[in-house]
Amino acid sequence: MEQRIIKSEKLTNYKWINLFRVQYINSKQNLCNWIFASRKKDPFKDKGVDAVVLVVLVDTSEGPKLVVTKEYRAPISDYEYGFPAGLIDKGKTLEETVKKELKEETGLNLVRIIGKSNPVVSTAGLSDESAIIVFLEASGEIKTEYQEKTEDIEAFLYDIKDISNLLTSDKKIGAKAWGILYYFSKMGKIELI
Amino acid sequence: MEQRIIKSEKLTNYKWINLFRVQYINSKQNLCNWIFASRKKDPFKDKGVDAVVLVVLVDTSEGPKLVVTKEYRAPISDYEYGFPAGLIDKGKTLEETVKKELKEETGLNLVRIIGKSNPVVSTAGLSDESAIIVFLEASGEIKTEYQEKTEDIEAFLYDIKDISNLLTSDKKIGAKAWGILYYFSKMGKIELI
Repeated sequence: MEQRIIKSEKLTNYKWINLFRVQYINSKQNLCNWIFASRKKDPFKDKGVDAVVLVVLVDTSEGPKLVVTKEYRAPISDYEYGFPAGLIDKGKTLEETVKKELKEETGLNLVRIIGKSNPVVSTAGLSDESAIIVFLEASGEIKTEYQEKTEDIEAFLYDIKDISNLLTSDKKIGAKAWGILYYFSKMGKIELI
Repeated sequence: MEQRIIKSEKLTNYKWINLFRVQYINSKQNLCNWIFASRKKDPFKDKGVDAVVLVVLVDTSEGPKLVVTKEYRAPISDYEYGFPAGLIDKGKTLEETVKKELKEETGLNLVRIIGKSNPVVSTAGLSDESAIIVFLEASGEIKTEYQEKTEDIEAFLYDIKDISNLLTSDKKIGAKAWGILYYFSKMGKIELI
């Protein structure tokens, strides 16, 4: 049997994130309640993708490297290691968002998008948040001068050894980056899906 | 300059998830406000790991396969494809949690834990949620009879081809699983970090 939503409601009224409650009959015909967080005004109607995550490959004289960011994240009161990322603004295309976030967070320029995932859900027990993982080639020099004033992001070019070291360190790594870093640490390259 | 937290407050009072606000001075000396979701009573004091995610390798007569789950997730009103996972209950060890969740969600038995990640943050702009990715070998038959009544999970044994097909489908894949599935789709095996 299919699930059936009985009732849904918005529980809070903040600008960037809110809690929502959904009551539904599950496939085993049990009545269930679930509270979750969403960035959307109406997550039951708006099924759009929230964000992009950028797997940025740069060809250097020392071989292929990946861009790894170190960003202060208030929810963990700590730095997160991961990939450049950002929310897709209303009316913006994927490519516009990729270019903008790449420039803002790393100073690099998009050479070409080489592949992308379908929307990946961040943590679907807690939120409807989703992101597309975009694989791309970039050129230029890493610069932080394009960041917004609330952003606190450093960007690095990491080779296979740097990434192995990161994975075995006690640094906090973002879930969307972890598996791809793991892949790169074994392969030293990125292949398309 | 280091960040400095000025004020933190709990904004809601639900059982499983709440919103919190933190006001802080960032490293550029700007005053910032951030609202985020947490499963914790006090995310500013409790820095423990929330969950485990299980990368389950089963040796079959057809070669190595990975356990992939298909779980109904109310926040996305849809099924999430990913790995068996679960919250770490207070007072439980990692290994106890791994055994319990593996049995509940797949019916399989733990043979041995072969490796684990450090805590990975799910989506640190939105939540402090973190999980340890545990690589393990399991034996037995896949069964769903141990699930809780609110759980709606199917488990499958996927080979390299099944995983390639999943990655190129329009199914919703969990972020913690995506990169590891991508790795397996290229390598047909799992190696330690």
